[in-house]
Parts: sequence; structure tokens; C-alpha cells
Amino acid sequence: DKTDNKIEPETFTSAQKERINELLLPGEKIPFSNEPSKFKEIESELVNKRRNDFKQMYENDREEQIAKLERTISQFFVDKGFIEIKAPIIIDIDSVKKMGIDTDHKLSKQIFYLDNKHCLRPMLAPGLYQWLKNFDKILPDPIKIFEIGPCYRKESEGSQHLEEFTMFNFCQMGSGANRENLLNHIDDLLKHLNIDYKIIDDNCHVYGETIDIVHGDLELSSAVVGPVPIDMNWGIDKTWIGAGLGLERLLKVKHGYKNIKRASKSHSYYNGISTNL
Amino acid sequence: DKTDNKIEPETFTSAQKERINELLLPGEKIPFSNEPSKFKEIESELVNKRRNDFKQMYENDREEQIAKLERTISQFFVDKGFIEIKAPIIIDIDSVKKMGIDTDHKLSKQIFYLDNKHCLRPMLAPGLYQWLKNFDKILPDPIKIFEIGPCYRKESEGSQHLEEFTMFNFCQMGSGANRENLLNHIDDLLKHLNIDYKIIDDNCHVYGETIDIVHGDLELSSAVVGPVPIDMNWGIDKTWIGAGLGLERLLKVKHGYKNIKRASKSHSYYNGISTNL
Ligand SMILES: Nc1ncnc2c1ncn2[C@@H]1O[C@H](COP(=O)(O)OP(=O)(O)OP(=O)(O)O)[C@@H](O)[C@H]1O
Ligand SMILES: Nc1ncnc2c1ncn2[C@@H]1O[C@H](COP(=O)(O)OP(=O)(O)OP(=O)(O)O)[C@@H](O)[C@H]1O
Ligand SMILES: [Mg+2]
Ligand SMILES: [Mg+2]
Ligand SMILES: [Mg+2]
Ligand SMILES: [Mg+2]
Repeated sequence: DKTDNKIEPETFTSAQKERINELLLPGEKIPFSNEPSKFKEIESELVNKRRNDFKQMYENDREEQIAKLERTISQFFVDKGFIEIKAPIIIDIDSVKKMGIDTDHKLSKQIFYLDNKHCLRPMLAPGLYQWLKNFDKILPDPIKIFEIGPCYRKESEGSQHLEEFTMFNFCQMGSGANRENLLNHIDDLLKHLNIDYKIIDDNCHVYGETIDIVHGDLELSSAVVGPVPIDMNWGIDKTWIGAGLGLERLLKVKHGYKNIKRASKSHSYYNGISTNL
Repeated sequence: DKTDNKIEPETFTSAQKERINELLLPGEKIPFSNEPSKFKEIESELVNKRRNDFKQMYENDREEQIAKLERTISQFFVDKGFIEIKAPIIIDIDSVKKMGIDTDHKLSKQIFYLDNKHCLRPMLAPGLYQWLKNFDKILPDPIKIFEIGPCYRKESEGSQHLEEFTMFNFCQMGSGANRENLLNHIDDLLKHLNIDYKIIDDNCHVYGETIDIVHGDLELSSAVVGPVPIDMNWGIDKTWIGAGLGLERLLKVKHGYKNIKRASKSHSYYNGISTNL
């Protein structure tokens, strides 16, 4: 029976819930058996835990999660015989057109324009098409290249989308460019990162038939077996396979983040741990 | 005596010179003892050499030079106890103002604006100032952080400047924030990369007194011993040291490139080797 006449709160307020979620790590149980009346103690317990996490990290593991994942994937694909590419992030608007993304296409409304000639790349494909062309007469068959780097898309907010995200895209042109190899490359990587996935056949405006790699309801990657009509815009006349994956989405799945913001380049979290302590 | 009446060219045409320079590696001698009449042979000899270089590289070392240098520097500074940061590349224009860069400052005319609120970061300092603030009450003294990533400045062309370049910036706040440690950190790194340098005391609008690290006439870095007036715009009240270095400039010196374009993210060169073969 309640001796004092303070009314015991039945549930947490939404602000309290938000604060607790901000401080919680994925899968962590709320201390003090989740008692609404104990919010103050719960909050300070979680703040102390997070402070310790930061001290630990500062002492033992000072690598940033996106950069670390980029290093893991680059190493993995260099070892698989793919050559590492770094193409410009500012691209000509023509390149977007050469991807077959005309004004009525959804993606064209997502572009960050810099001026009437340039924009921030919404994907890595334009740069990679050019490198396939550059290397076509130089490197022995098959030509295997990849890039990891920032891409930009205007997105109506959501827990699965970022306006600045990091894309990994690999492609192979010439012999071995078939569906089986494509899926093998993807399987090699996702096994290496131990991320589960399903394969769903889909299609999209740019490439037509695509293979989507999903984890639950989250798309991890779209993959394509060429040739496709826009190849000729790039002077590519050999068959190819390729796939684009979002690193923040891989991290979201790997660490069980509820919102992709925890995997993003933001000031609110470091390696998924709230800085609001 | 010249039996046929073909007039022997005295010197290479400027187009021929440009083509030869494009194909030459730094320090490489022009084959056929540099004979203008032998341009065709010289060109095909150099093209074959570059093709072999690419085949070698594709077989043995598929790492891209900027990415590789980034990995080397990140590893080096993580091992020195610095925590790796990745901050957004699109920043608020306010952040540029909080750097004390007002409209009549040279740097303000170099900004790539996205809209009236956002621009591409011209430097890493704004993000790092925020992270020093984020970590100030969380991490034990001293707070040591660094970032490597793209920066954007409109530049009148030149052999030392790129509009999209890669900056490395480290800073230390709290104890040990003195000139001697600053120069030690820089010396550690440049020794590790075996790049020679000189120290020149300079000053700039943003920070006032700066220490420039130069190699010949090329500025490799500007370094600062805080505190400086703009600290208060960021809520920073402890002393600090920091320095920004351009990766493409480090590569230019390391490999003896005549033009920084060879170190840049362009389609004309891969790891300093012309793709125009
Ligand atoms: N805004 C975004 N934020 C984070 N990752 C993204 C974003 N857009 C795309 N990606 C990642 O890039 C991969 C390849 O890009 P693609 O163009 O196929 O995305 P998409 O089909 O538009 O994805 P979605 O349907 O989720 O918007 C996606 O599978 C996803 O992993
Ligand atoms: N446009 C550029 N292209 C490549 N590297 C650059 C460029 N601007 C600056 N850097 C590199 O970033 C470092 C720190 O930036 P800082 O603002 O001090 O450059 P800066 O003083 O404007 O250099 P400069 O006088 O050569 O233009 C420089 O020492 C240089 O190594
Ligand atoms: Mg989308
Ligand atoms: Mg898709
Ligand atoms: Mg300058
Ligand atoms: Mg300078």
C-alpha cells in the first residue's frame, strides 16, 4: 500500500522512453526492472554504463565503426583480386543522365545539386562505369574493381535512410560475369561479416531486373547481372555483374540498431553509443 | 650527312612533350635518348611499360594510393592513442562562421554551397571542435582525436591545389597541449612516411599564429597551438594543439609527382600511372 500520497506513475512519459532508448545499447535490459518510478535511477545507471563503455573504448579500441568496416571490406575484396578505386564525389549531372535517370525518375528528385553542371553522386556506378572503360584495354580479363565511399540522396527521413551514407560497390566485367558468381561474391562477404540475408528478385528503373539482398524488411543491396541498355552510354560492350551495399545498413543489422542514425556520421553517437551523457 | 631530304625535327612539339610527360613516371629517363625524330618509338615504348606496370599492379598490389595512405595514417594515430572520428561532409554554413571565416576572408570565397544553409566542408576543424566538445566531459585527459576525409575548396587551378582533396587532421586537448608535443606528433608521422620537411612560423586569419610544415615550396600542413579566440564559439575552454595535412600533397612529395593531379581522385591516372594508353 502506498503510504505517501505521491501517485505512482503507471508508465514512462514519452520523453523518458526516448531518453532511456537513447542510452540503452541494443538488446540491453532496462535496469531497476523497468519501474517508471525509478526513472532517475535508471537514467543515471545507464549514463554511468555508457561512460565506462567510452573509457574502455578510448583505452582499447579507438577505431570508428564505418571506417573499420570499410577497411575490412577493402581488404577482403583486394584479396579476392578486385582493384580498389577512388572516384570523385562531385560528378557531372550528365553522368546521372547517362545512368538513365531522367527527370521523372524517383532518384532524380533525390539529387543534391551543386550548380547546373555538378551534383553529389547518389551512387558509385557512374565512376565505376568509367573505370571499367579505362581498364578495358589495359587489364587482363576479367576486370574486377570496387569502390567504397560517400553517396548523397535527399530522403524523406526514416529509420532506414540517411542523406549522407557510405556505399560499397563491386563489379566484374568479362568472363565469369554470371548470376552464380555474383551471388557467390555477395555470400562470401556477408558470411565474412556474419550477416544473414535472403535473396529477392526485384526490378528497378535504372537496371531493369535486379536481385535484392534483404535482411528482414531491410534492403542491404541491389545486385545486377548485365548487360543492360545504359551500358552503351558508357562505351561498355561486355557482360558484367555488380552490386551496391550500404555500410550503415550492414552496421544496423550487425549491431541490431533500431535506427540507422546510430550507424551514421552524426555527433549524437560514437560507435552506437550516445554522446548525450 | 643526311641522305634523305626529310628535315630532322630539332625539338619535340609541345603536344609531344605533354604526351611524353603524361606517360613518364617521376624520375624516369626518356627512352631512345630523347631524340625528337624518335617520338613514335618513344611513345609506344612508354605505353608498353605502363601497360606492364598495370598488369603487375593488378596481380600484386590492388590498393589505391589515397586509401592506402589513409589506412597507414589511421593505424599510426590509433596506435598513438588518438580516437578515430568520421564527421559529416555536408555542414551548416554557421559552422564556417563559427570558424571566424567571415565574408571578406579568402576561404569564404572558396566554399561549395549546397543551399543557403549548407555547404561542403572546406576543412575538418568544425567537426573536430564539436567532437572535442562531445568528449570533453566523457573521456579522460588528454582528449586525442583525429579524422581523415574529403574537403572541398574552389581553387584557381594549379599544380598544388585540388578542388576535392583529402585532409588528415589530429588534435589533442588538455595536458600535453604544447608546441613541443605538436611538433613531435608531426615528426613521428612524417618520419614514418619518410617525408622530409621544414618548419616555418606563419600566421593565418582563422587561427592567428600558425606553424607551417613545408617541403620545398609546398605547404604540407598548418599546425596551431591553442587556445585561440574562436574556441569560445565552440564552448572549448581548454588548451589544445592540432594540425591539418593534405594527403594528396604528401603523395605528391613522396612519389615526386610534378602535378598534384597525379595524386588526386581522377580518371586520368591510377596510382600515378596514366590510363590514356
Ligand atoms: N538513403 C540511404 N541511406 C543508407 N543506405 C542507402 C540509402 N540508399 C541506398 N542505400 C544503400 O545502397 C544500396 C544500393 O542502392 P539502391 O539504389 O539499390 O538503394 P534503394 O533501392 O534506393 O534502397 P531503398 O529502396 O532502401 O531506398 C541499398 O541496397 C542500400 O543498402
Ligand atoms: N586545395 C587544396 N588541395 C590539396 N590540399 C590542400 C588544399 N588546400 C589545403 N590543402 C592541404 O590542407 C592543409 C591544411 O589546410 P590549410 O587551410 O592550412 O591550407 P592553405 O593554408 O590554404 O594551403 P595553401 O596555402 O597551399 O592553399 C594544407 O597544408 C594542405 O596540405
Ligand atoms: Mg532509395
Ligand atoms: Mg535497391
Ligand atoms: Mg589555400
Ligand atoms: Mg595553411
